[in-house]
Amino acid sequence: MREEATAFVPGHITGFFSAHPADDPTMAGSRGAGLTLTDGVTVTVEPVAEEASESIVILDGEMIEIEPVDIVLETLDVVARVEAESDLPLGAGFGISGAMALGTALAANRVFGCKLSRNELVTIAHGAEVQAGTGLGDVVAQDCGGIPIRLEPGGPQENKLDAIPARARVEYVSFGELSTADVLAGDTDQLTAAGKEALSRVVEEPTLLSFMYASRLFAREAELLTEEVAHTIGDVTDVNGQASMAMLGETVFALGTGLSDAGYEPSVCATHPAGALLR
Amino acid sequence: MREEATAFVPGHITGFFSAHPADDPTMAGSRGAGLTLTDGVTVTVEPVAEEASESIVILDGEMIEIEPVDIVLETLDVVARVEAESDLPLGAGFGISGAMALGTALAANRVFGCKLSRNELVTIAHGAEVQAGTGLGDVVAQDCGGIPIRLEPGGPQENKLDAIPARARVEYVSFGELSTADVLAGDTDQLTAAGKEALSRVVEEPTLLSFMYASRLFAREAELLTEEVAHTIGDVTDVNGQASMAMLGETVFALGTGLSDAGYEPSVCATHPAGALLR
Repeated sequence: MREEATAFVPGHITGFFSAHPADDPTMAGSRGAGLTLTDGVTVTVEPVAEEASESIVILDGEMIEIEPVDIVLETLDVVARVEAESDLPLGAGFGISGAMALGTALAANRVFGCKLSRNELVTIAHGAEVQAGTGLGDVVAQDCGGIPIRLEPGGPQENKLDAIPARARVEYVSFGELSTADVLAGDTDQLTAAGKEALSRVVEEPTLLSFMYASRLFAREAELLTEEVAHTIGDVTDVNGQASMAMLGETVFALGTGLSDAGYEPSVCATHPAGALLR
Repeated sequence: MREEATAFVPGHITGFFSAHPADDPTMAGSRGAGLTLTDGVTVTVEPVAEEASESIVILDGEMIEIEPVDIVLETLDVVARVEAESDLPLGAGFGISGAMALGTALAANRVFGCKLSRNELVTIAHGAEVQAGTGLGDVVAQDCGGIPIRLEPGGPQENKLDAIPARARVEYVSFGELSTADVLAGDTDQLTAAGKEALSRVVEEPTLLSFMYASRLFAREAELLTEEVAHTIGDVTDVNGQASMAMLGETVFALGTGLSDAGYEPSVCATHPAGALLR
Protein backbone atom coordinates (compact mmCIF):
# COMPACT_ATOMS: atom_id res chain seq x y z
CA MET A 1 0.00 0.00 0.00
CA ARG A 2 1.29 3.47 -0.89
CA GLU A 3 1.29 6.25 1.68
CA GLU A 4 -0.79 8.54 -0.51
CA ALA A 5 -1.69 9.36 -4.09
CA THR A 6 -2.86 12.58 -5.70
CA ALA A 7 -5.03 13.19 -8.74
CA PHE A 8 -5.93 16.42 -10.53
CA VAL A 9 -9.36 16.62 -12.11
CA PRO A 10 -10.24 19.56 -14.39
CA GLY A 11 -13.35 21.59 -13.65
CA HIS A 12 -16.16 21.18 -16.18
CA ILE A 13 -18.65 23.78 -17.32
CA THR A 14 -21.65 22.30 -19.12
CA GLY A 15 -22.98 24.64 -21.81
CA PHE A 16 -26.11 22.60 -22.56
CA PHE A 17 -27.46 19.15 -21.81
CA SER A 18 -30.40 16.80 -21.91
CA ALA A 19 -31.13 14.44 -19.01
CA HIS A 20 -31.37 10.69 -19.65
CA PRO A 21 -32.44 8.84 -16.51
CA ALA A 22 -32.18 5.05 -16.23
CA ASP A 23 -32.57 2.53 -13.42
CA ASP A 24 -28.91 1.51 -13.70
CA PRO A 25 -26.80 4.53 -12.65
CA THR A 26 -23.99 3.48 -15.00
CA MET A 27 -26.43 3.71 -17.93
CA ALA A 28 -28.09 6.95 -16.83
CA GLY A 29 -26.46 10.24 -17.76
CA SER A 30 -26.74 13.18 -20.09
CA ARG A 31 -26.06 14.28 -23.62
CA GLY A 32 -24.50 17.70 -24.08
CA ALA A 33 -21.25 19.60 -24.40
CA GLY A 34 -18.97 21.66 -22.21
CA LEU A 35 -15.52 22.99 -21.45
CA THR A 36 -13.04 21.25 -19.15
CA LEU A 37 -10.90 23.78 -17.31
CA THR A 38 -7.31 24.19 -16.14
CA ASP A 39 -8.93 25.33 -12.88
CA GLY A 40 -9.95 22.14 -11.12
CA VAL A 41 -9.68 20.00 -8.02
CA THR A 42 -6.58 18.31 -6.59
CA VAL A 43 -7.52 15.24 -4.56
CA THR A 44 -5.13 13.42 -2.24
CA VAL A 45 -6.10 10.06 -0.77
CA GLU A 46 -4.35 8.28 2.08
CA PRO A 47 -5.32 5.30 4.23
CA VAL A 48 -6.63 6.17 7.70
CA ALA A 49 -5.29 4.63 10.89
CA GLU A 50 -6.54 1.09 11.37
CA GLU A 51 -8.64 1.88 14.44
CA ALA A 52 -10.62 4.53 12.52
CA SER A 53 -13.69 3.03 10.93
CA GLU A 54 -14.93 6.00 8.90
CA SER A 55 -13.59 7.89 5.94
CA ILE A 56 -12.92 11.62 6.24
CA VAL A 57 -13.44 14.11 3.41
CA ILE A 58 -11.89 17.57 3.53
CA LEU A 59 -12.39 20.32 0.95
CA ASP A 60 -10.23 23.45 1.18
CA GLY A 61 -9.40 22.72 4.81
CA GLU A 62 -12.94 21.99 6.01
CA MET A 63 -14.61 18.67 6.77
CA ILE A 64 -17.45 18.17 4.35
CA GLU A 65 -19.86 15.48 3.28
CA ILE A 66 -19.93 14.81 -0.46
CA GLU A 67 -22.17 11.83 -1.12
CA PRO A 68 -20.57 10.70 -4.41
CA VAL A 69 -17.18 10.52 -2.67
CA ASP A 70 -18.63 8.35 0.10
CA ILE A 71 -20.21 6.06 -2.51
CA VAL A 72 -16.90 5.73 -4.40
CA LEU A 73 -15.02 4.77 -1.22
CA GLU A 74 -17.71 2.27 -0.25
CA THR A 75 -17.69 0.74 -3.73
CA LEU A 76 -13.90 0.34 -3.60
CA ASP A 77 -14.33 -1.05 -0.07
CA VAL A 78 -11.70 1.23 1.45
CA VAL A 79 -11.56 3.62 4.40
CA ALA A 80 -9.58 6.72 3.55
CA ARG A 81 -8.77 10.31 4.31
CA VAL A 82 -9.62 12.37 1.21
CA GLU A 83 -8.21 15.87 1.14
CA ALA A 84 -9.15 18.12 -1.77
CA GLU A 85 -8.16 21.60 -2.83
CA SER A 86 -10.30 23.38 -5.36
CA ASP A 87 -9.65 26.38 -7.59
CA LEU A 88 -13.40 26.65 -8.11
CA PRO A 89 -16.51 27.42 -6.02
CA LEU A 90 -18.79 24.52 -5.00
CA GLY A 91 -22.35 24.42 -6.31
CA ALA A 92 -21.74 27.01 -9.01
CA GLY A 93 -21.70 24.72 -12.06
CA PHE A 94 -18.07 23.60 -12.26
CA GLY A 95 -18.54 19.89 -11.61
CA ILE A 96 -16.78 19.90 -8.23
CA SER A 97 -18.68 16.88 -6.91
CA GLY A 98 -17.81 14.93 -10.07
CA ALA A 99 -14.18 15.99 -9.79
CA MET A 100 -14.07 14.90 -6.15
CA ALA A 101 -15.61 11.52 -7.02
CA LEU A 102 -13.31 10.86 -9.99
CA GLY A 103 -10.18 12.12 -8.23
CA THR A 104 -10.99 9.92 -5.23
CA ALA A 105 -11.47 6.87 -7.47
CA LEU A 106 -8.17 7.39 -9.34
CA ALA A 107 -6.10 8.16 -6.25
CA ALA A 108 -7.68 5.45 -4.07
CA ASN A 109 -7.09 2.85 -6.80
CA ARG A 110 -3.41 3.74 -6.66
CA VAL A 111 -3.06 3.94 -2.88
CA PHE A 112 -4.91 0.73 -2.12
CA GLY A 113 -3.71 -1.23 -5.18
CA CYS A 114 -7.28 -1.95 -6.32
CA LYS A 115 -6.03 -2.90 -9.83
CA LEU A 116 -9.05 -1.48 -11.61
CA SER A 117 -8.89 -0.06 -15.13
CA ARG A 118 -9.50 3.58 -16.00
CA ASN A 119 -12.95 2.79 -17.43
CA GLU A 120 -13.89 0.86 -14.29
CA LEU A 121 -12.89 3.81 -12.08
CA VAL A 122 -14.76 6.30 -14.26
CA THR A 123 -17.82 4.02 -14.20
CA ILE A 124 -17.74 3.93 -10.39
CA ALA A 125 -17.39 7.72 -10.09
CA HIS A 126 -20.07 8.38 -12.73
CA GLY A 127 -22.48 5.93 -11.10
CA ALA A 128 -21.86 7.53 -7.70
CA GLU A 129 -22.70 11.01 -9.07
CA VAL A 130 -25.88 9.78 -10.70
CA GLN A 131 -26.93 7.88 -7.59
CA ALA A 132 -26.35 10.96 -5.42
CA GLY A 133 -28.25 13.15 -7.89
CA THR A 134 -25.38 15.65 -8.04
CA GLY A 135 -24.58 15.35 -11.74
CA LEU A 136 -25.15 13.41 -14.95
CA GLY A 137 -22.29 14.15 -17.30
CA ASP A 138 -19.41 15.86 -15.51
CA VAL A 139 -17.44 12.73 -14.65
CA VAL A 140 -17.22 11.33 -18.18
CA ALA A 141 -16.34 14.81 -19.49
CA GLN A 142 -13.65 15.23 -16.82
CA ASP A 143 -12.21 11.84 -17.77
CA CYS A 144 -11.96 13.02 -21.37
CA GLY A 145 -10.59 16.57 -21.05
CA GLY A 146 -10.63 19.20 -23.79
CA ILE A 147 -14.06 20.28 -25.01
CA PRO A 148 -16.09 17.07 -24.88
CA ILE A 149 -19.33 16.45 -26.74
CA ARG A 150 -21.44 13.80 -25.01
CA LEU A 151 -23.26 12.12 -27.90
CA GLU A 152 -24.72 9.25 -25.89
CA PRO A 153 -25.34 9.18 -22.13
CA GLY A 154 -23.91 6.87 -19.48
CA GLY A 155 -20.60 5.60 -18.18
CA PRO A 156 -17.67 4.64 -20.43
CA GLN A 157 -19.14 1.23 -21.29
CA GLU A 158 -22.34 2.83 -22.58
CA ASN A 159 -21.63 6.33 -23.79
CA LYS A 160 -20.26 7.82 -26.98
CA LEU A 161 -18.06 10.89 -26.88
CA ASP A 162 -16.62 13.25 -29.43
CA ALA A 163 -14.91 16.62 -28.92
CA ILE A 164 -14.48 20.07 -30.41
CA PRO A 165 -10.83 20.15 -31.54
CA ALA A 166 -9.98 23.59 -30.17
CA ARG A 167 -8.64 25.35 -27.12
CA ALA A 168 -9.47 28.68 -25.56
CA ARG A 169 -8.84 31.10 -22.74
CA VAL A 170 -11.88 31.02 -20.45
CA GLU A 171 -13.14 33.69 -18.05
CA TYR A 172 -15.87 33.25 -15.45
CA VAL A 173 -17.76 35.03 -12.68
CA SER A 174 -19.99 33.30 -10.12
CA PHE A 175 -22.92 34.95 -8.36
CA GLY A 176 -24.07 31.98 -6.32
CA GLU A 177 -25.33 28.43 -6.20
CA LEU A 178 -28.05 26.52 -8.00
CA SER A 179 -28.96 23.02 -6.86
CA THR A 180 -28.41 20.50 -9.64
CA ALA A 181 -30.52 18.01 -7.69
CA ASP A 182 -33.46 20.46 -7.52
CA VAL A 183 -33.39 21.25 -11.24
CA LEU A 184 -33.06 17.59 -12.20
CA ALA A 185 -35.90 16.66 -9.83
CA GLY A 186 -38.25 19.13 -11.56
CA ASP A 187 -39.91 18.84 -14.98
CA THR A 188 -37.04 18.42 -17.46
CA ASP A 189 -39.05 17.99 -20.70
CA GLN A 190 -38.45 21.50 -22.00
CA LEU A 191 -34.81 21.35 -20.94
CA THR A 192 -34.30 18.05 -22.72
CA ALA A 193 -35.91 19.29 -25.95
CA ALA A 194 -33.67 22.38 -25.91
CA GLY A 195 -30.63 20.22 -25.11
CA LYS A 196 -31.24 17.93 -28.07
CA GLU A 197 -31.56 20.86 -30.43
CA ALA A 198 -28.33 22.39 -29.13
CA LEU A 199 -26.52 19.08 -29.58
CA SER A 200 -27.61 18.76 -33.23
CA ARG A 201 -26.23 22.21 -33.87
CA VAL A 202 -22.82 21.41 -32.36
CA VAL A 203 -22.60 18.01 -34.06
CA GLU A 204 -23.26 19.73 -37.38
CA GLU A 205 -20.59 22.34 -36.72
CA PRO A 206 -18.19 21.29 -33.94
CA THR A 207 -16.59 24.69 -33.33
CA LEU A 208 -16.29 26.89 -30.25
CA LEU A 209 -18.51 29.57 -31.77
CA SER A 210 -21.35 27.19 -32.50
CA PHE A 211 -20.96 25.73 -28.98
CA MET A 212 -21.36 29.18 -27.43
CA TYR A 213 -24.33 30.01 -29.65
CA ALA A 214 -26.04 26.71 -28.87
CA SER A 215 -25.37 27.18 -25.15
CA ARG A 216 -26.95 30.64 -25.04
CA LEU A 217 -30.02 29.45 -26.92
CA PHE A 218 -30.30 26.48 -24.55
CA ALA A 219 -30.09 28.62 -21.41
CA ARG A 220 -32.90 30.81 -22.71
CA GLU A 221 -35.15 28.02 -23.96
CA ALA A 222 -34.69 25.87 -20.86
CA GLU A 223 -35.66 28.94 -18.79
CA LEU A 224 -32.71 28.56 -16.47
CA LEU A 225 -31.34 32.11 -16.75
CA THR A 226 -31.41 34.18 -13.58
CA GLU A 227 -31.69 37.94 -13.90
CA GLU A 228 -28.08 38.62 -12.97
CA VAL A 229 -26.77 35.94 -15.34
CA ALA A 230 -28.89 37.22 -18.24
CA HIS A 231 -27.70 40.76 -17.59
CA THR A 232 -24.04 39.73 -17.54
CA ILE A 233 -24.31 37.69 -20.74
CA GLY A 234 -25.91 40.76 -22.32
CA ASP A 235 -22.99 42.94 -21.20
CA VAL A 236 -20.52 40.56 -22.87
CA THR A 237 -22.60 40.44 -26.05
CA ASP A 238 -22.61 44.25 -26.10
CA VAL A 239 -18.81 44.26 -26.44
CA ASN A 240 -18.98 41.54 -29.14
CA GLY A 241 -17.91 38.80 -26.73
CA GLN A 242 -19.14 35.23 -26.38
CA ALA A 243 -20.65 34.26 -23.02
CA SER A 244 -23.19 31.83 -21.61
CA MET A 245 -24.34 30.28 -18.34
CA ALA A 246 -22.70 27.32 -16.59
CA MET A 247 -25.17 24.45 -16.15
CA LEU A 248 -26.04 24.35 -13.29
CA GLY A 249 -24.84 27.34 -11.32
CA GLU A 250 -25.32 31.08 -11.17
CA THR A 251 -22.13 31.43 -13.19
CA VAL A 252 -21.32 33.19 -16.46
CA PHE A 253 -18.39 31.97 -18.56
CA ALA A 254 -16.89 33.67 -21.58
CA LEU A 255 -14.30 32.89 -24.23
CA GLY A 256 -11.13 34.96 -24.49
CA THR A 257 -11.46 38.32 -22.74
CA GLY A 258 -15.25 38.59 -23.02
CA LEU A 259 -15.95 39.39 -19.36
CA SER A 260 -12.90 41.62 -18.87
CA ASP A 261 -13.84 43.60 -21.95
CA ALA A 262 -17.31 44.11 -20.47
CA GLY A 263 -15.80 45.58 -17.29
CA TYR A 264 -16.03 42.56 -14.98
CA GLU A 265 -13.16 41.17 -12.90
CA PRO A 266 -13.42 37.51 -13.80
CA SER A 267 -11.35 34.50 -12.79
CA VAL A 268 -9.21 33.43 -15.73
CA CYS A 269 -8.23 29.95 -16.85
CA ALA A 270 -8.23 27.94 -20.08
CA THR A 271 -9.60 24.73 -21.51
CA HIS A 272 -7.68 21.75 -20.10
CA PRO A 273 -6.09 19.61 -22.80
CA ALA A 274 -6.15 16.40 -20.74
CA GLY A 275 -8.64 14.45 -18.71
CA ALA A 276 -8.17 13.70 -15.02
CA LEU A 277 -4.60 12.67 -14.24
CA LEU A 278 -2.53 11.18 -11.46
CA ARG A 279 0.08 13.58 -10.14
CA MET B 1 -7.96 31.31 -42.53
CA ARG B 2 -5.34 31.38 -39.78
CA GLU B 3 -1.68 31.90 -40.61
CA GLU B 4 -0.63 28.68 -38.93
CA ALA B 5 -1.56 26.20 -36.22
CA THR B 6 0.55 23.83 -34.15
CA ALA B 7 -0.29 20.50 -32.56
CA PHE B 8 1.75 18.30 -30.22
CA VAL B 9 1.26 14.56 -30.51
CA PRO B 10 2.82 12.23 -27.91
CA GLY B 11 5.02 9.39 -29.09
CA HIS B 12 3.53 5.92 -28.61
CA ILE B 13 5.35 2.70 -27.79
CA THR B 14 3.27 -0.41 -28.42
CA GLY B 15 4.10 -3.19 -25.97
CA PHE B 16 2.02 -5.87 -27.71
CA PHE B 17 -0.65 -6.04 -30.38
CA SER B 18 -2.71 -8.21 -32.66
CA ALA B 19 -3.44 -7.15 -36.25
CA HIS B 20 -7.04 -6.87 -37.45
CA PRO B 21 -7.19 -6.11 -41.16
CA ALA B 22 -10.42 -5.00 -42.86
CA ASP B 23 -11.32 -3.64 -46.29
CA ASP B 24 -12.43 -0.32 -44.80
CA PRO B 25 -9.31 1.37 -43.35
CA THR B 26 -11.40 3.08 -40.66
CA MET B 27 -12.51 -0.36 -39.41
CA ALA B 28 -9.10 -2.02 -39.67
CA GLY B 29 -6.67 -1.64 -36.80
CA SER B 30 -5.14 -3.48 -33.88
CA ARG B 31 -5.83 -4.58 -30.36
CA GLY B 32 -3.05 -4.10 -27.82
CA ALA B 33 -1.59 -1.74 -25.26
CA GLY B 34 1.21 0.79 -25.03
CA LEU B 35 2.65 3.89 -23.44
CA THR B 36 2.14 7.40 -24.81
CA LEU B 37 5.20 9.56 -24.17
CA THR B 38 6.04 13.14 -23.23
CA ASP B 39 8.60 12.85 -26.05
CA GLY B 40 6.62 13.34 -29.24
CA VAL B 41 6.17 15.32 -32.42
CA THR B 42 5.28 19.01 -32.79
CA VAL B 43 3.53 19.65 -36.10
CA THR B 44 2.96 23.12 -37.56
CA VAL B 45 0.70 23.55 -40.56
CA GLU B 46 0.42 26.66 -42.71
CA PRO B 47 -1.19 27.32 -46.08
CA VAL B 48 1.22 27.45 -49.03
CA ALA B 49 1.30 30.28 -51.54
CA GLU B 50 -1.59 30.08 -53.98
CA GLU B 51 0.57 29.37 -57.01
CA ALA B 52 2.09 26.28 -55.34
CA SER B 53 0.07 23.19 -56.16
CA GLU B 54 1.78 20.65 -53.91
CA SER B 55 2.06 20.20 -50.19
CA ILE B 56 5.48 20.17 -48.55
CA VAL B 57 6.37 18.01 -45.54
CA ILE B 58 9.45 18.74 -43.44
CA LEU B 59 10.68 16.65 -40.51
CA ASP B 60 13.51 18.03 -38.37
CA GLY B 61 14.55 20.43 -41.11
CA GLU B 62 14.54 17.96 -44.01
CA MET B 63 12.00 17.47 -46.78
CA ILE B 64 10.48 14.04 -46.43
CA GLU B 65 7.64 12.01 -47.86
CA ILE B 66 5.32 10.50 -45.25
CA GLU B 67 2.43 8.85 -47.06
CA PRO B 68 -0.15 9.10 -44.23
CA VAL B 69 0.43 12.87 -44.07
CA ASP B 70 -0.16 13.19 -47.82
CA ILE B 71 -3.36 11.17 -47.50
CA VAL B 72 -4.61 13.35 -44.61
CA LEU B 73 -4.01 16.56 -46.60
CA GLU B 74 -5.71 15.10 -49.68
CA THR B 75 -8.69 13.95 -47.61
CA LEU B 76 -9.06 17.43 -46.11
CA ASP B 77 -8.63 18.82 -49.64
CA VAL B 78 -5.96 21.33 -48.63
CA VAL B 79 -2.48 22.21 -49.85
CA ALA B 80 -0.17 22.97 -46.95
CA ARG B 81 3.33 23.29 -45.65
CA VAL B 82 3.73 20.81 -42.78
CA GLU B 83 6.76 21.33 -40.58
CA ALA B 84 7.41 18.81 -37.82
CA GLU B 85 9.97 18.53 -35.07
CA SER B 86 10.41 15.22 -33.35
CA ASP B 87 12.00 14.25 -30.05
CA LEU B 88 12.09 10.66 -31.28
CA PRO B 89 13.79 8.64 -34.04
CA LEU B 90 11.75 7.64 -37.12
CA GLY B 91 11.13 3.95 -37.81
CA ALA B 92 12.14 2.83 -34.34
CA GLY B 93 8.70 2.04 -32.91
CA PHE B 94 7.54 5.39 -31.53
CA GLY B 95 4.57 6.00 -33.81
CA ILE B 96 6.12 8.99 -35.60
CA SER B 97 4.11 8.47 -38.79
CA GLY B 98 0.89 8.29 -36.76
CA ALA B 99 1.89 11.41 -34.83
CA MET B 100 2.62 13.27 -38.07
CA ALA B 101 -0.74 12.22 -39.53
CA LEU B 102 -2.76 13.13 -36.43
CA GLY B 103 -0.88 16.39 -35.81
CA THR B 104 -1.41 17.38 -39.44
CA ALA B 105 -5.14 16.63 -39.21
CA LEU B 106 -5.63 18.65 -36.00
CA ALA B 107 -3.54 21.63 -37.11
CA ALA B 108 -4.89 21.70 -40.68
CA ASN B 109 -8.47 21.60 -39.38
CA ARG B 110 -7.70 24.73 -37.40
CA VAL B 111 -5.76 26.60 -40.08
CA PHE B 112 -8.20 25.93 -42.88
CA GLY B 113 -11.39 26.09 -40.77
CA CYS B 114 -12.48 22.59 -41.86
CA LYS B 115 -14.98 22.41 -38.96
CA LEU B 116 -14.51 18.71 -38.39
CA SER B 117 -14.90 17.08 -34.98
CA ARG B 118 -12.07 15.44 -33.05
CA ASN B 119 -13.37 11.94 -33.89
CA GLU B 120 -13.58 12.82 -37.58
CA LEU B 121 -9.98 14.05 -37.58
CA VAL B 122 -8.76 10.97 -35.71
CA THR B 123 -10.67 8.75 -38.15
CA ILE B 124 -8.98 10.45 -41.11
CA ALA B 125 -5.50 10.11 -39.58
CA HIS B 126 -6.09 6.50 -38.52
CA GLY B 127 -7.45 5.56 -41.93
CA ALA B 128 -4.45 7.21 -43.61
CA GLU B 129 -2.00 5.20 -41.47
CA VAL B 130 -3.79 1.94 -42.21
CA GLN B 131 -3.99 2.72 -45.92
CA ALA B 132 -0.27 3.51 -46.05
CA GLY B 133 0.55 0.35 -44.08
CA THR B 134 2.64 2.33 -41.57
CA GLY B 135 0.62 1.53 -38.45
CA LEU B 136 -2.58 0.07 -37.04
CA GLY B 137 -3.08 1.45 -33.56
CA ASP B 138 -0.78 4.40 -32.89
CA VAL B 139 -3.20 7.15 -33.95
CA VAL B 140 -6.08 6.12 -31.69
CA ALA B 141 -3.63 5.65 -28.80
CA GLN B 142 -2.08 9.08 -29.44
CA ASP B 143 -5.55 10.62 -29.47
CA CYS B 144 -6.19 9.08 -26.05
CA GLY B 145 -2.92 9.72 -24.16
CA GLY B 146 -1.88 7.99 -20.95
CA ILE B 147 -1.42 4.22 -21.14
CA PRO B 148 -4.15 3.14 -23.55
CA ILE B 149 -5.51 -0.39 -23.87
CA ARG B 150 -6.99 -0.99 -27.32
CA LEU B 151 -9.79 -3.47 -26.64
CA GLU B 152 -11.36 -3.34 -30.09
CA PRO B 153 -9.66 -2.29 -33.34
CA GLY B 154 -10.48 0.56 -35.70
CA GLY B 155 -11.06 4.30 -35.69
CA PRO B 156 -13.04 6.12 -32.97
CA GLN B 157 -16.43 5.15 -34.44
CA GLU B 158 -15.54 1.46 -34.26
CA ASN B 159 -13.03 0.87 -31.51
CA LYS B 160 -13.23 0.42 -27.76
CA LEU B 161 -10.51 1.80 -25.51
CA ASP B 162 -9.64 1.52 -21.85
CA ALA B 163 -6.46 2.57 -20.04
CA ILE B 164 -4.12 1.62 -17.24
CA PRO B 165 -4.65 4.36 -14.61
CA ALA B 166 -0.99 4.99 -13.83
CA ARG B 167 1.96 7.10 -14.82
CA ALA B 168 5.66 6.35 -15.03
CA ARG B 169 9.10 7.61 -15.91
CA VAL B 170 10.16 5.91 -19.14
CA GLU B 171 13.67 5.27 -20.47
CA TYR B 172 14.54 4.04 -23.96
CA VAL B 173 17.46 3.18 -26.25
CA SER B 174 17.16 2.64 -30.01
CA PHE B 175 19.49 0.46 -32.05
CA GLY B 176 17.84 0.91 -35.42
CA GLU B 177 14.78 0.56 -37.59
CA LEU B 178 12.32 -2.21 -38.28
CA SER B 179 9.79 -1.83 -41.08
CA THR B 180 6.24 -2.02 -39.71
CA ALA B 181 5.00 -2.54 -43.26
CA ASP B 182 7.31 -5.57 -43.74
CA VAL B 183 6.27 -7.23 -40.48
CA LEU B 184 2.58 -6.62 -41.13
CA ALA B 185 2.92 -7.93 -44.69
CA GLY B 186 4.34 -11.25 -43.40
CA ASP B 187 2.52 -14.09 -41.65
CA THR B 188 0.93 -12.52 -38.56
CA ASP B 189 -0.92 -15.58 -37.15
CA GLN B 190 1.58 -16.30 -34.39
CA LEU B 191 1.86 -12.61 -33.56
CA THR B 192 -1.90 -12.25 -33.34
CA ALA B 193 -2.28 -15.27 -31.06
CA ALA B 194 0.43 -13.92 -28.74
CA GLY B 195 -1.17 -10.46 -28.84
CA LYS B 196 -4.57 -11.76 -27.80
CA GLU B 197 -3.07 -13.65 -24.87
CA ALA B 198 -1.17 -10.55 -23.73
CA LEU B 199 -4.35 -8.47 -23.93
CA SER B 200 -6.32 -10.91 -21.73
CA ARG B 201 -3.58 -10.66 -19.15
CA VAL B 202 -3.66 -6.85 -19.05
CA VAL B 203 -7.46 -6.68 -19.05
CA GLU B 204 -7.48 -9.02 -16.07
CA GLU B 205 -4.93 -6.89 -14.23
CA PRO B 206 -4.61 -3.39 -15.70
CA THR B 207 -1.35 -2.41 -14.00
CA LEU B 208 2.04 -1.29 -15.32
CA LEU B 209 3.74 -4.44 -14.06
CA SER B 210 1.36 -6.78 -15.82
CA PHE B 211 1.69 -4.65 -18.99
CA MET B 212 5.48 -5.05 -18.94
CA TYR B 213 5.24 -8.78 -18.25
CA ALA B 214 2.71 -9.29 -21.05
CA SER B 215 4.85 -7.22 -23.43
CA ARG B 216 8.00 -9.27 -22.80
CA LEU B 217 6.13 -12.53 -23.27
CA PHE B 218 4.61 -11.19 -26.49
CA ALA B 219 7.97 -10.10 -27.93
CA ARG B 220 9.36 -13.58 -27.32
CA GLU B 221 6.35 -15.53 -28.58
CA ALA B 222 5.88 -13.38 -31.67
CA GLU B 223 9.58 -13.98 -32.44
CA LEU B 224 10.27 -10.31 -33.03
CA LEU B 225 13.25 -9.95 -30.68
CA THR B 226 16.57 -9.09 -32.30
CA GLU B 227 19.75 -10.24 -30.59
CA GLU B 228 20.71 -6.79 -29.34
CA VAL B 229 17.21 -6.09 -28.02
CA ALA B 230 17.02 -9.45 -26.21
CA HIS B 231 20.43 -8.85 -24.67
CA THR B 232 19.47 -5.37 -23.42
CA ILE B 233 16.18 -6.55 -21.92
CA GLY B 234 18.19 -9.26 -20.15
CA ASP B 235 20.57 -6.64 -18.74
CA VAL B 236 17.65 -4.68 -17.29
CA THR B 237 16.10 -7.84 -15.84
CA ASP B 238 19.45 -8.64 -14.20
CA VAL B 239 19.21 -5.42 -12.15
CA ASN B 240 15.55 -6.17 -11.28
CA GLY B 241 14.24 -3.65 -13.82
CA GLN B 242 11.26 -3.86 -16.16
CA ALA B 243 12.00 -3.59 -19.89
CA SER B 244 10.57 -4.74 -23.19
CA MET B 245 10.74 -4.07 -26.93
CA ALA B 246 8.90 -1.28 -28.77
CA MET B 247 6.62 -2.69 -31.48
CA LEU B 248 7.88 -2.24 -34.13
CA GLY B 249 11.43 -0.96 -33.85
CA GLU B 250 14.81 -2.06 -32.62
CA THR B 251 14.12 -0.17 -29.41
CA VAL B 252 14.14 -1.20 -25.75
CA PHE B 253 12.01 0.75 -23.26
CA ALA B 254 12.08 0.45 -19.49
CA LEU B 255 10.10 1.80 -16.55
CA GLY B 256 11.75 4.06 -13.98
CA THR B 257 15.54 3.83 -14.09
CA GLY B 258 15.72 0.31 -15.54
CA LEU B 259 18.14 1.07 -18.38
CA SER B 260 20.28 3.53 -16.39
CA ASP B 261 20.62 1.00 -13.60
CA ALA B 262 21.83 -1.55 -16.15
CA GLY B 263 24.59 0.83 -17.30
CA TYR B 264 22.99 2.22 -20.47
CA GLU B 265 22.69 5.91 -21.34
CA PRO B 266 19.03 6.05 -22.29
CA SER B 267 16.80 8.90 -23.39
CA VAL B 268 14.44 9.78 -20.55
CA CYS B 269 10.82 10.88 -20.69
CA ALA B 270 7.53 9.91 -19.02
CA THR B 271 4.06 8.75 -19.90
CA HIS B 272 2.04 11.64 -21.35
CA PRO B 273 -1.15 12.33 -19.40
CA ALA B 274 -3.02 13.80 -22.39
CA GLY B 275 -3.75 12.85 -25.96
CA ALA B 276 -2.70 14.98 -28.93
CA LEU B 277 -3.32 18.67 -28.30
CA LEU B 278 -3.38 21.98 -30.11
CA ARG B 279 -0.70 24.34 -28.90
